[in-house]
Amino acid sequence: MNFRMTTYILGLLLAFEGAFMAVPVLTAAVYHEPELLLFAVTALLCLAAGFLLSRFKPKTKRLFARDGFLIVALSWILLSLVGALPFYISGCIPRFVDAVFETVSGFTTTGASILHTLEGMPKCMLMWRSFTHWVGGMGVLVFIMALLPIAGGQNMYLMKAESPGPSVSKLVPRVRKTAMLLYVIYFVMTVLEIALLLIGGMPAFDAINISFATAGTGGFSCDPAGMPYNPFCINVITVFMIMFGVNFTCYFLFLQRRFRDGFTEELKIYLGIIVFAIVTITLDVRHLPMFSGTGEALMHSSFTVGSLMTTTGFATVDFNLWPEYSRTLLVLLMFVGACAGSTGGGIKVSRCIIFFKSMHNELRIMTHPRQVKTLKMDGHPIELDVIRSVSAYFACYILIYVVSMLVLSFDQLDLTTNFTATVATLDNIGPGLNLVGPTSNYDVFSTASKCMLIFNMLAGRLELFPIVLLLSPATWKK
Amino acid sequence: MNFRMTTYILGLLLAFEGAFMAVPVLTAAVYHEPELLLFAVTALLCLAAGFLLSRFKPKTKRLFARDGFLIVALSWILLSLVGALPFYISGCIPRFVDAVFETVSGFTTTGASILHTLEGMPKCMLMWRSFTHWVGGMGVLVFIMALLPIAGGQNMYLMKAESPGPSVSKLVPRVRKTAMLLYVIYFVMTVLEIALLLIGGMPAFDAINISFATAGTGGFSCDPAGMPYNPFCINVITVFMIMFGVNFTCYFLFLQRRFRDGFTEELKIYLGIIVFAIVTITLDVRHLPMFSGTGEALMHSSFTVGSLMTTTGFATVDFNLWPEYSRTLLVLLMFVGACAGSTGGGIKVSRCIIFFKSMHNELRIMTHPRQVKTLKMDGHPIELDVIRSVSAYFACYILIYVVSMLVLSFDQLDLTTNFTATVATLDNIGPGLNLVGPTSNYDVFSTASKCMLIFNMLAGRLELFPIVLLLSPATWKK
Repeated sequence: MNFRMTTYILGLLLAFEGAFMAVPVLTAAVYHEPELLLFAVTALLCLAAGFLLSRFKPKTKRLFARDGFLIVALSWILLSLVGALPFYISGCIPRFVDAVFETVSGFTTTGASILHTLEGMPKCMLMWRSFTHWVGGMGVLVFIMALLPIAGGQNMYLMKAESPGPSVSKLVPRVRKTAMLLYVIYFVMTVLEIALLLIGGMPAFDAINISFATAGTGGFSCDPAGMPYNPFCINVITVFMIMFGVNFTCYFLFLQRRFRDGFTEELKIYLGIIVFAIVTITLDVRHLPMFSGTGEALMHSSFTVGSLMTTTGFATVDFNLWPEYSRTLLVLLMFVGACAGSTGGGIKVSRCIIFFKSMHNELRIMTHPRQVKTLKMDGHPIELDVIRSVSAYFACYILIYVVSMLVLSFDQLDLTTNFTATVATLDNIGPGLNLVGPTSNYDVFSTASKCMLIFNMLAGRLELFPIVLLLSPATWKK
Repeated sequence: MNFRMTTYILGLLLAFEGAFMAVPVLTAAVYHEPELLLFAVTALLCLAAGFLLSRFKPKTKRLFARDGFLIVALSWILLSLVGALPFYISGCIPRFVDAVFETVSGFTTTGASILHTLEGMPKCMLMWRSFTHWVGGMGVLVFIMALLPIAGGQNMYLMKAESPGPSVSKLVPRVRKTAMLLYVIYFVMTVLEIALLLIGGMPAFDAINISFATAGTGGFSCDPAGMPYNPFCINVITVFMIMFGVNFTCYFLFLQRRFRDGFTEELKIYLGIIVFAIVTITLDVRHLPMFSGTGEALMHSSFTVGSLMTTTGFATVDFNLWPEYSRTLLVLLMFVGACAGSTGGGIKVSRCIIFFKSMHNELRIMTHPRQVKTLKMDGHPIELDVIRSVSAYFACYILIYVVSMLVLSFDQLDLTTNFTATVATLDNIGPGLNLVGPTSNYDVFSTASKCMLIFNMLAGRLELFPIVLLLSPATWKK
């Protein structure tokens, strides 16, 4: 393991986190909040520690695959621990495990909260909370790589470990330039959403917060009342949630006018599932007394489907009260998740496609053993190691899932709560059903269960392997 | 497709089913029940139709892989439809879909029932119900193959499609002889259990019924009160349930004194899981008021673990009332199931082992890309197509699972009920939790849901592929 390189990157990370704290500092200044000092001091300490650590330049920039995984895992843990300090020191969240839970939930764009109410929370804290979504959504290490050429050609490993989805995008050759371009798209889309929400009459503070949370497909809201906005704003958020769940490579290709390449199989199926879910859920819920008619039902169904499929986790209504078909479909959408290469969580649509294509192929081989066919996606053959790694991913997923269900079961809550809490954290969604439904929070769990859920969120955001490898003895062998 | 060969085998199957009905005919004779005539007539009709169909000898015995799958799927469907007739015609089960549900549940060794009470059910019907477990457990087609050399060397395909577990046993070279030997073991173990239960003081009718249901790991009980037996009998049933969940090849090897070969990795892990589950569940439930002390808790925990892990589904107590840890662990055991090559259902221990070994291997490759290792089981390398087919199996499993959850959701029952009903039928277990818990029954579901659950049971028993292929358009293409 390249120890010096690890501390060097962790140092850079701390420095960047310090810089990110400029956002809450600014917010505190605008609203004249006393927490300004706290954020400013934390930011300065981060910057100082960061510069100190990164002064020890590594002798070699050589990184092995496992170094990449470990650096990513350690970076995210450090990021979360430091990010939790303002919540804890200010006393806004009195217990440290809760502060870490909230911060991990932020950076991993989960949006699960242990807060009973947002009443009385300083605006700068709310802003920091939403901003963690935005930072976590874009992938902080890749962001650093894009700005600084720290690891030469070796940053592929880091990118692979941090970026969501089964295979690194096809835009790889000029990684840095591509990454920069994707960030520009991310930034522009966020600004666009803020602008549209302002036009819709939303207060500036809310518009910025909500947009950060949408961009990261996170789901922390900033209003104690939930989502008290007008239909125009609700619909804008719906559209942007769905847009942030699309593979960013598609936008890149659209910008280059390569529409056919951009309209990938994954995108088609992603949109297909969303349309199917919206239509059937609207039909299922339109007669409920909570809606005045089909129009309103459609609006809230679309919002909820967009929110859960992209794993954002916003809620305009309590979908816990919906009929069983809708509840079941929503749980299944939580599993599927958004597109690979988006900010959304979940198993990812493309991974599901590969899984089912290989099943279909296997069934063919059984009935027609002499017809050999290679699996294809968008016309290109899927490489065998991608298929193999998808299987390994599912196995890991099931394993974590089982352990999590068992750990949570000791709290004596019901099976649906434990089941959906596990899915909601492992897929970075946020709300589940029953006791962790959209109108409740995760404070019902014990400290041990919260630690398990923190683990789930980190594992989910980093696509399982970096976090699992951190625990595997084989990784630490010479 | 070899059409003549298909009708020929289906004819043989009908004839055998007619012969099997000798058991309820005999029971009706002993207890002087009027249903004797009904069973006798059905049996004779089956025999007549069977001999008629099997008189048209096929021109060629050549079978392709897909013929094998289709014949197995069609055979099981025919077997169930005909087996349901006595229940329906006698009026014991007034609706045909319910009669089919009960029969499929019998043959697939699921043990899920739509009956509210067994009170007033004729003894010959109860005997037929339990006997379907015994017949289904041993695999009726392989049984025919073992007695009659109908398909030359081609019966491998049938055996592959009907026998449980990821790979056909190593005893393949002399299929017929081996199959006969396995049936002798099956028969002897059943007789042994009957004898021990009689020694324990159980009435003869009950002892025979319970032993049939244990041997097939089915779970239909014959007493309206459930399991009102003494501790000796309960413990005998526990031990036999666990023994019938072991790969029969192990017994074969033990008989040949090849103890090291017989004590396979799968067997060790199977027993390890059982011990772990019994110990932790006993600790979890020993303070409950339903038990007088740790001894009683241990007895009922062992029984329940053996019952659910082997997917038998007997219940001595209402484990629905146990703490959440025990309930969760039991649900997870339902998923895992028994050993491959046993009469038990579920995903099978060996399939789980292969799945997790390939995950472990993948994680190794990620961190040490240059160390190539082949996967091994019991010291022998696992072939690539076994690994690939395990993945396809999981994909199929998840797909059926999703469809089933959605279909069931329309009945507006709760998520835990639907979730465990799906697992309990797809894994051929029997009882689930909540509304399908051990003290309830499956009559809560609508006809559409019952059809879905019938499909699940058949798919589960035949290891998914034959039933799924029946529905796949690719199978019917030239």
